[in-house]
Amino acid sequence: MNQSLQQGFLRSALTKEGHLMTNESFFTWMNKRKASVTVNIDRVAFDQLGQWHFDAKTSNLVHESGKFFAIEGIRVSTNWGHVPSWSQPIINQSEIGFLGIIARKFDGVLHFLMQAKIEPGNINFVQLSPTLQATKSNYTRVHKGNPPNYLDYFLKENRARHTVLLDQLQSEQGARFLRKRNRNIIIEVNEDVPLLEDFCWLTLGQIHHLLGFDNVINMDTRTVISGIPFGDFSRDLIDFYNSIQPSLAPNLEFESGMLMSAIETENHLHSIETIISWFTELKSMYELQVESIGLSEVQDWNITDRHIEQKDGKYFRVIGVRAEIANREVRAWTQPLVESVQEGIIAFIVKKINGVYHFVVQAKLEAGNLDILEMAPTVQCLTGNYRKGYNEYEPAFLDYVLARQEDPKVVKYSTFQSEEGGRFYQEQNRNIIIEADDSFDEDLPDNYIWMTLNQLKTFIKYNNYLNIQARSLISAIKFI
Amino acid sequence: MNQSLQQGFLRSALTKEGHLMTNESFFTWMNKRKASVTVNIDRVAFDQLGQWHFDAKTSNLVHESGKFFAIEGIRVSTNWGHVPSWSQPIINQSEIGFLGIIARKFDGVLHFLMQAKIEPGNINFVQLSPTLQATKSNYTRVHKGNPPNYLDYFLKENRARHTVLLDQLQSEQGARFLRKRNRNIIIEVNEDVPLLEDFCWLTLGQIHHLLGFDNVINMDTRTVISGIPFGDFSRDLIDFYNSIQPSLAPNLEFESGMLMSAIETENHLHSIETIISWFTELKSMYELQVESIGLSEVQDWNITDRHIEQKDGKYFRVIGVRAEIANREVRAWTQPLVESVQEGIIAFIVKKINGVYHFVVQAKLEAGNLDILEMAPTVQCLTGNYRKGYNEYEPAFLDYVLARQEDPKVVKYSTFQSEEGGRFYQEQNRNIIIEADDSFDEDLPDNYIWMTLNQLKTFIKYNNYLNIQARSLISAIKFI
Repeated sequence: MNQSLQQGFLRSALTKEGHLMTNESFFTWMNKRKASVTVNIDRVAFDQLGQWHFDAKTSNLVHESGKFFAIEGIRVSTNWGHVPSWSQPIINQSEIGFLGIIARKFDGVLHFLMQAKIEPGNINFVQLSPTLQATKSNYTRVHKGNPPNYLDYFLKENRARHTVLLDQLQSEQGARFLRKRNRNIIIEVNEDVPLLEDFCWLTLGQIHHLLGFDNVINMDTRTVISGIPFGDFSRDLIDFYNSIQPSLAPNLEFESGMLMSAIETENHLHSIETIISWFTELKSMYELQVESIGLSEVQDWNITDRHIEQKDGKYFRVIGVRAEIANREVRAWTQPLVESVQEGIIAFIVKKINGVYHFVVQAKLEAGNLDILEMAPTVQCLTGNYRKGYNEYEPAFLDYVLARQEDPKVVKYSTFQSEEGGRFYQEQNRNIIIEADDSFDEDLPDNYIWMTLNQLKTFIKYNNYLNIQARSLISAIKFI
Repeated sequence: MNQSLQQGFLRSALTKEGHLMTNESFFTWMNKRKASVTVNIDRVAFDQLGQWHFDAKTSNLVHESGKFFAIEGIRVSTNWGHVPSWSQPIINQSEIGFLGIIARKFDGVLHFLMQAKIEPGNINFVQLSPTLQATKSNYTRVHKGNPPNYLDYFLKENRARHTVLLDQLQSEQGARFLRKRNRNIIIEVNEDVPLLEDFCWLTLGQIHHLLGFDNVINMDTRTVISGIPFGDFSRDLIDFYNSIQPSLAPNLEFESGMLMSAIETENHLHSIETIISWFTELKSMYELQVESIGLSEVQDWNITDRHIEQKDGKYFRVIGVRAEIANREVRAWTQPLVESVQEGIIAFIVKKINGVYHFVVQAKLEAGNLDILEMAPTVQCLTGNYRKGYNEYEPAFLDYVLARQEDPKVVKYSTFQSEEGGRFYQEQNRNIIIEADDSFDEDLPDNYIWMTLNQLKTFIKYNNYLNIQARSLISAIKFI
């Protein structure tokens, strides 16, 4: 990519106030959008799910069209971790959907067209989504509703008029989805774009600002912006730029350090090739075999009239909801949703090494992964399950994070962020970034490695590397 | 990777004569190796396969240990190409094996430790393989034979003493293997390495030289060396180096042009990001669903006492062989092999654009692909099947290549190279590189794109991009 595009992203990230929507007016606007529609989300029994039913042969929970998604079973065996085999329900949605953002320059600064979107599972009902968020069933209009707004800009036949700034296939939650991926795409449009009433233009700096609040920016927005690159620079060039700019205020030291970590290509502890070798080693060592089975064959899970649930109430359950949302293309519908039964935490531990912030990255196996392992945050787990003494083991670094999660000196970021409200019912996880002190051991366990932010962004670019939890945290890193 | 490692590879590639084994003595040595062992490969009926049998329930052809590999069935459906669904036999070998080469500097030049290895399916019986070529069953000694030579150098506990130069997971043939990958690894050893009698040290330039002959360098060697990088340089820097070096002889114009294409990071027709976007678009559009079925459920294929074969004799057949090889860790064994029933061709069309050689790269779907599509040569097909008039369609650019394949002015490379002799019986494909003339249309069909060699090497580095046929051709490109 030519550096001018990356500089365009960086300039937008450093622009904290919007030219079209101020930070002050944003929440007023958001609340007005929310007030303008009627929202009713009711839990219903599975036999009230209308076009959804349990397949007579497999017991899978499917839509009558065969489209959208299905709740199926898988049988898993692996030599990773502490549990060699299990079966579980999983969401199967093999189609690749669009998560698309339209960008446009106003006064020379890239703004992103964001949507106040209501999803049945959303906490707060409304969160800020990409311009276009559409499954293939959705945009090919299986449900016979209106086509999604702004779809035309993303269709192949029209895209030549615009500039593609980013276009990647990225994974969804591997513990809940079977090899699900979406197309994360940002296009720059150089013509007037009509502004519909649920939409607003924000700079990347504004989106970062809103990521400082709980449950405002939805998961789909977070994954798309996580892949945004800010350039590749040598330390010499960065030092030169720094020397001709006013020095940054001391309280911005972490933020400016993160910017350096995002753009510097030198002074990393490990080369990209060494990291690839580390990942190759682990993928060669660990096996993941996943067999599709009927939901009725899943062991230790029960299907009741309202729930598909683990017999001890662990992990998650599948529920049915009836949704009425007045500003959607279909005003009322029913669908299954996945409800987490426990709180979760995702955390990166970071530390300055060689003068550059490095992240502790974990190689993590999840049953729905396309390729055995993905790169995950330092800690990613359901905290309820893994509290000390509750299980026979606990994840590395969990104690470290939990012990420091209220310490303002080391907690550099901490919010609750939601999973995607079209599939998950009011699920939020604590997103946290903690800066380790000097005594933190730089030697890591085998399936952990140090990476700079620039290296993480490089792996995002080549797809199939970072999991959605890692990307969610990365999306929240701001520079000023 | 630091540039000095890449320069080490380049220096070895430019060293045409070995310090330890001359080109002149190589074939004498190779023939002596061949003469020193007894080789007998006999076709046998399946009921003579000893530890292999057809599973009572699935009819899959399996080893009694459950290890090694199995011949199974798959049912495929896709919206790519002209055939929406089919079933076929496929090799299932889910373990990731080692394809490992030990490298060592002699007089400052990297040499690679190559093995004269006999495989039951090899044309010429003996071909030059990596130092270590071992499945996990193999090196964990399921067959209770001796451990493979030089295995110790590659084991995790010893590897810290050496330098990893390359370490990637790369795919095997997607039409024959179900999501099979191997670990392609090169390690540099800085201590004396005992030289066993079936082994020799060669420079990369010598290996390139031997790739000018038919069926000398085996598939495993080709895939490992295809990923070797030679650096990333700007045009300015290249021009500077060229200005201080003696000008290259005119007959080396193609070779020096290929070197420029391998190392130059500018003047490409498309950026890496544009190529990723092109690939993302295609992966979003095309679906591939693969279901494992029993071999007995595969339609239009028959199992006889000696063959698993397509009813019209198309594509390939599975046969049984009894092998006796005296220098192997097990001296006699039986196994299934896949025999192609037709000749095949793999071809890259290249053209200088913006002063840099670009390759016509195809996005190709094969049933065993891990991720729907891989980047393939311009033409890759069984030629028998696709001769004009024989089928309802024919692959793009096939006519172009066939019409020029005997023209020495445009054919820059042409040999027969073998598929892996441990799984494929005497299968060879024509490997050909053709330089297009000025009139060749730079506008390509949707699923083709122009890339430089530097870009192809970049995608190899990040794994899961180039298929084995593309890598095979790339391995043969020499610079002087």
